[in-house]
Amino acid sequence: METQTRLRSKQKIITLLTDFGLMDPYVAEMKATILTLCPDAKIIDISHLVRKFDVKMGAYILAQAAPYFPDGTVHVVVVDPGVGTERRPIIVQAERSFYVGPDNGVLMLSAKREGIKKIYEIKNPKYMLPKVSRTFHGRDIFSPAAAYLVMGVPPKCFGPEVIDPIIPSFAEPSVYEDRVSGEVIHVDNFGNLITNISTEALEKAEIREGDMITVQIGDKLLKVKFCRAYGEVSPGKLLAVIGGGGLLEFSVNLGNAKEVLNCDVGVKITVSH
Amino acid sequence: METQTRLRSKQKIITLLTDFGLMDPYVAEMKATILTLCPDAKIIDISHLVRKFDVKMGAYILAQAAPYFPDGTVHVVVVDPGVGTERRPIIVQAERSFYVGPDNGVLMLSAKREGIKKIYEIKNPKYMLPKVSRTFHGRDIFSPAAAYLVMGVPPKCFGPEVIDPIIPSFAEPSVYEDRVSGEVIHVDNFGNLITNISTEALEKAEIREGDMITVQIGDKLLKVKFCRAYGEVSPGKLLAVIGGGGLLEFSVNLGNAKEVLNCDVGVKITVSH
Amino acid sequence: METQTRLRSKQKIITLLTDFGLMDPYVAEMKATILTLCPDAKIIDISHLVRKFDVKMGAYILAQAAPYFPDGTVHVVVVDPGVGTERRPIIVQAERSFYVGPDNGVLMLSAKREGIKKIYEIKNPKYMLPKVSRTFHGRDIFSPAAAYLVMGVPPKCFGPEVIDPIIPSFAEPSVYEDRVSGEVIHVDNFGNLITNISTEALEKAEIREGDMITVQIGDKLLKVKFCRAYGEVSPGKLLAVIGGGGLLEFSVNLGNAKEVLNCDVGVKITVSH
Repeated sequence: METQTRLRSKQKIITLLTDFGLMDPYVAEMKATILTLCPDAKIIDISHLVRKFDVKMGAYILAQAAPYFPDGTVHVVVVDPGVGTERRPIIVQAERSFYVGPDNGVLMLSAKREGIKKIYEIKNPKYMLPKVSRTFHGRDIFSPAAAYLVMGVPPKCFGPEVIDPIIPSFAEPSVYEDRVSGEVIHVDNFGNLITNISTEALEKAEIREGDMITVQIGDKLLKVKFCRAYGEVSPGKLLAVIGGGGLLEFSVNLGNAKEVLNCDVGVKITVSH
Repeated sequence: METQTRLRSKQKIITLLTDFGLMDPYVAEMKATILTLCPDAKIIDISHLVRKFDVKMGAYILAQAAPYFPDGTVHVVVVDPGVGTERRPIIVQAERSFYVGPDNGVLMLSAKREGIKKIYEIKNPKYMLPKVSRTFHGRDIFSPAAAYLVMGVPPKCFGPEVIDPIIPSFAEPSVYEDRVSGEVIHVDNFGNLITNISTEALEKAEIREGDMITVQIGDKLLKVKFCRAYGEVSPGKLLAVIGGGGLLEFSVNLGNAKEVLNCDVGVKITVSH
Repeated sequence: METQTRLRSKQKIITLLTDFGLMDPYVAEMKATILTLCPDAKIIDISHLVRKFDVKMGAYILAQAAPYFPDGTVHVVVVDPGVGTERRPIIVQAERSFYVGPDNGVLMLSAKREGIKKIYEIKNPKYMLPKVSRTFHGRDIFSPAAAYLVMGVPPKCFGPEVIDPIIPSFAEPSVYEDRVSGEVIHVDNFGNLITNISTEALEKAEIREGDMITVQIGDKLLKVKFCRAYGEVSPGKLLAVIGGGGLLEFSVNLGNAKEVLNCDVGVKITVSH
């Protein structure tokens, strides 16, 4: 009885994050494969609108969402321009979660934050679909791996350990005394510019909410209020704010910062007093 | 045993309706938060493509979908231009359902139709995430509130009663003898113009399916067939029809009424013989 | 105990495939209707972005996804330009699955591949919503039928057998000695052109992976490499490849074949050495 309770309380959550879009049957084929192998899996979509082949955007969205999922969640990511070539399919066993996807860096931003324990290549055909296509490893390799992982197959059963994974060098923010430099790593649906500048980096530079700050965005130099909420400036005004994920964002109250600043992912940003 | 059966038969359905779009990790963060607190919640997306900050559209979509959900469903709505300002997060306890979201009117069209019992402000930090961000109450306040509500926490535990909620004044249709006036409250994906003119209002004015009706849409005056089905007029022709939600719609058979009539939400409509 | 185990292992999967888009409340109304009748249904979206009224595209996506779902799955398809007219709502009982939708051919490509056992018209009002609207059979007829089917109601209870269903004549590829002719039946989100030319047809014409092939696409005559993976040609180059569904696709490595070839669904394709 107790065992049963414990088993029940253990959820089998698998998340999916891809660049497949929502029109085609691909995401459904992955879900069908998972449910065929693991009928009580709970599948949650993170996003399927990652820009095609944009490994950095996939990595960012994963790192943003993963911390909110329960322990034991298996995150499957298919942003995979190298599918069918030599790149390895891998499982990253991290402190709280498993990450399944291609060895192209897309899993690493999130896995590194969480703490990587071991990485394994998925090589054992026992844990793949009987017929592996060359163009859809999301369905044929990653989905079955996720299903078997939530069912309790130890990650070492999938294949040999990987000691040289590809780790992306997405810029960490740099703090020089009273200024912090970073970049726009994501533009959300509201046109908010999300940077890799963390609360911690701002604290080191003694930049705090309530301050007026000097911001260099690309070649523009601006004075911006570092607000606690969007509503603190009048509609149409630019503001800086700490977003839900603990990162500095630039927003326009009731507007679109991306359009106002004519600015996109990768633009360099420096913040100071 | 009997208790267990009863508990099991009680579904824990939480619906989500937001203006977040489907690209960003926000919706997944809400789902992760709910599933962490309530592993057996069943989460159903109503829509995440509400136009940004469009409280009226959110209210319309909610009112359309909510009646079909089982008793005890908790509806979470995050169309929230005032997030981070003084607007209150609230729980509306209605006859059959709970509504969770900002006190900006978005919950009220549906809750009023269903019958409002009590409204409570969400103030008790016990039922929020430990760290509440200023920009993402959907994840930090509304999602935990929904999880605790489906788990059976009484709504009065969340905070003080609200006696002055914001009630939107979305126009009800007006009946003057043989004519009914209202407005377009929604344009759906097919370009159908959905009005706030109900079957009941049309019956009062003795306008019935099968009639040819005179319709003023904006400054256009048209003769239109009030049909039982789209197929009753030839392809490309305008028709009036009662939609799935019991409201008068204007449609073009196999076409797009919005484009044909060059017409959008808010346009005034008067229907007569 | 054993019975319970068996019952539990039987999943109640219902898939949804529509042209409703993701903005409106329609899909949620279908899910709400299903969950009200069958609380433990597991609902999986195949796609809601079928082009409006595009029966062929709906048929293609269904045929692509259905084989991956477990036995006993109920597939609901609502691509239904004739809703409210005389077209019949039907249930197709196939070898492994049930298909529920309008009798306009959209179910048949997949059901025929699987093997059709019987077809029934949905006529028994006992298995519909109490009030059936004329414009939304997806919610009022098809969703309840799916819920009752997964709950075990035999298909013959829904209405009389259908012996003259509409079977679409979507072209099968033709093999003339060393050449295969077919057409583009789908363009996916990546701009890949998916044809109805199967591996089997190519084998008959002795066209094999690794070959350089001559392809007539519309009025263009091209030499293309028939690859095992996208990465076998350099970025920007056109290739032919067998896609996840066992059909010949034309793709541009890291690019968009639809744009490069200025080509869409329906374009005729002939492949030879």
